[in-house]
Amino acid sequence: MYKFNKKLLSITLGLLCCQAATAAVSIEEATAIQRSLVTLDSHLDTPANLVVPGFDILERHTYDHDFSQVDVPRMKEGALDGGFWAVYSPQGELTTSGYEQSRDTALLRALAIRTMVAANPDVFEFATQSADAEKIKKNSKHIVYMSMENAYPLGTDISLLETFYKFGLRMAGPVHFKNNQFGDSSTDPSGTKWGGLSPLGEKLVAEANRLGIVLDGSHAHDETVKDMIRLSKTPIILSHTGSKAIYDHPRNVDDTLLKELAKSGGVIQMNAYSEYLEELPADPERKAAFGGLMKLVKEGSDRSVILEKRREIEHEHPAVKASFEVYMEHFLHALNVVGPKHVGIGADWDGGGGVDDMMDVVNLPKITKRLLDEGYSKSDLADIWGGNALRVLQQAHDYAESLKTSKK
Amino acid sequence: MYKFNKKLLSITLGLLCCQAATAAVSIEEATAIQRSLVTLDSHLDTPANLVVPGFDILERHTYDHDFSQVDVPRMKEGALDGGFWAVYSPQGELTTSGYEQSRDTALLRALAIRTMVAANPDVFEFATQSADAEKIKKNSKHIVYMSMENAYPLGTDISLLETFYKFGLRMAGPVHFKNNQFGDSSTDPSGTKWGGLSPLGEKLVAEANRLGIVLDGSHAHDETVKDMIRLSKTPIILSHTGSKAIYDHPRNVDDTLLKELAKSGGVIQMNAYSEYLEELPADPERKAAFGGLMKLVKEGSDRSVILEKRREIEHEHPAVKASFEVYMEHFLHALNVVGPKHVGIGADWDGGGGVDDMMDVVNLPKITKRLLDEGYSKSDLADIWGGNALRVLQQAHDYAESLKTSKK
Repeated sequence: MYKFNKKLLSITLGLLCCQAATAAVSIEEATAIQRSLVTLDSHLDTPANLVVPGFDILERHTYDHDFSQVDVPRMKEGALDGGFWAVYSPQGELTTSGYEQSRDTALLRALAIRTMVAANPDVFEFATQSADAEKIKKNSKHIVYMSMENAYPLGTDISLLETFYKFGLRMAGPVHFKNNQFGDSSTDPSGTKWGGLSPLGEKLVAEANRLGIVLDGSHAHDETVKDMIRLSKTPIILSHTGSKAIYDHPRNVDDTLLKELAKSGGVIQMNAYSEYLEELPADPERKAAFGGLMKLVKEGSDRSVILEKRREIEHEHPAVKASFEVYMEHFLHALNVVGPKHVGIGADWDGGGGVDDMMDVVNLPKITKRLLDEGYSKSDLADIWGGNALRVLQQAHDYAESLKTSKK
Repeated sequence: MYKFNKKLLSITLGLLCCQAATAAVSIEEATAIQRSLVTLDSHLDTPANLVVPGFDILERHTYDHDFSQVDVPRMKEGALDGGFWAVYSPQGELTTSGYEQSRDTALLRALAIRTMVAANPDVFEFATQSADAEKIKKNSKHIVYMSMENAYPLGTDISLLETFYKFGLRMAGPVHFKNNQFGDSSTDPSGTKWGGLSPLGEKLVAEANRLGIVLDGSHAHDETVKDMIRLSKTPIILSHTGSKAIYDHPRNVDDTLLKELAKSGGVIQMNAYSEYLEELPADPERKAAFGGLMKLVKEGSDRSVILEKRREIEHEHPAVKASFEVYMEHFLHALNVVGPKHVGIGADWDGGGGVDDMMDVVNLPKITKRLLDEGYSKSDLADIWGGNALRVLQQAHDYAESLKTSKK
């Protein structure tokens, strides 16, 4: 039975190969090329799973079973070397006690990232310098840079950014879903509060520059992004963002801003968060069912119970996701507007990312295949898959070093 | 040759055994008994070595070569299961920038302890509850509780104590060599500043109680210790302190304070820091040579260079250490005054501890032998070697839990 299937598979692949030869590279070829590059996703929300009891990053999971999207076996299969692993903090009140609680949560998340690496020295290596990525890949390990999504946990104490820098942080975005002490978010239902960065947010930019931390404008309001580009001494990144020309959503940027970003040396990393890629049909029943699920979470129910309920919901009210094609429309549009030196990949894995036919990192070579099919070269792919993000990291580092030298 | 020596050894041991049978247990018997107990040192400064490049806690070191006193092979040989691994922070100025720098140093030291455990899951296990110690010993692993020596890094932000609690901290002392924002030290050359705990120090005591952290009065001025005993809702510990009746030094406590400590349920853990055990001859040449060594350290010289220089100094101007007998005088005196329910062991390993014939943890069974020879029972030894420290930890936890219950 096995042999028969294998043979059939071989015939099928042969046919695909011959058809494809005229127009497109095969997924196997694309995978092989991707495997030869340093591949980084600039926004992995996977550290949230590290603190889930029972979650083992070394084991293979499936999205259908536990809704996770990144683990070592799947990274290997999908040819993903690593990326920026996010210290994400949900936002509470803009009060001292809110800040303190979040500071602790963020420090513990950073600890979780560091202990993941410490516990698996043959699998992961922690990276702080741009050049580390290639060295780590050569050692056949996965690359772990640390980033921060939402600087809310810093409270009003900018000095905490250095604390996180010392923990290894090398990328940080000021805001998340809502405006905070550092500036305006792109999605706060109350509108803008500061008209971009707040005065404290401006200090945050200067401090990130001083330390050598890349500033991340994802989730930030357009005016905040503009302020960041204007004030930052080194190029900024949009670690997981889309093209507004394809879908007019506040989490995406328009061509004017995209060009401004690129002109300043910055990079947009394409987000695969379906709701930001196209208008999806409302599903009030699914929404209501998720309300019930959240109740279970708040009651502190067992993870197995919560997952079982979630699987039920997914069965009864399946999520409508954007298509892979729409994701690539965003991607190719950005490439058309600013070119392959200013576009990369940040799909928001384990943070809501995922489109039809690419619901976890296993399917990443589809992107490579599609870009190769579009005529992008292997060298372009190297930039897109990691080179661009590493370039802005290098620039952030060089600037910080230049300050030290000029002080001497 | 080997066989001959073994035979000779066997004869020698036989003679020792027969001589000892009338008056004393053998070191082998003492070691075996010690091995059957949960053995904890309440003040291990070893985490300072964890951040020294090249230091490997899994490898066997010698004091004569690198002046370290604790590693896994030596813990095994000396029958030490573990202890409270200290987040020690040297004290700078009592200013915001001093506090911030120290906060970061302390957080990184806590990270070093946690990553040591994460990197060696078969060797170490992190402990936060009193009952963890026995479970970990049963799993043949070494026990790692986290403590803090000098609360200076908390600055004026008491909420940071909870941050460290979340990192696993379960014991904390307010001061070190000098007075600080929390109270008076026993050794500040300028004398006392607060007359005991400062108002902020009183808040620290309350917060430690609320969280379930054992308060540590080592290094604190007698008046500070008295304030801690008076204000703390649970018994305090002196994690590494001696008997003033044996040697009148500010780092030791007199019998009155010792009795007050015991009456409140507290514990003194006997310190093996030679300079606090007896008057030692001054050695100005050694002192001057160490001045030169510190210059090398400040210049950032290679560790190998510094160690080579240190070995030279130790050869040319050997340190005069207190004798093991004097250490036991302190120990036995405290036992005579407050009994075996209120005395334990905290020898300040890797923090300056060590006496003649006990310069690292390999020699710990000498203590057990001596206490057995003095007539203390195996049950007493169980209390001394860990039971007492774990009791005050349990009491701190129970009090914190009682607050939660009463709030409900």
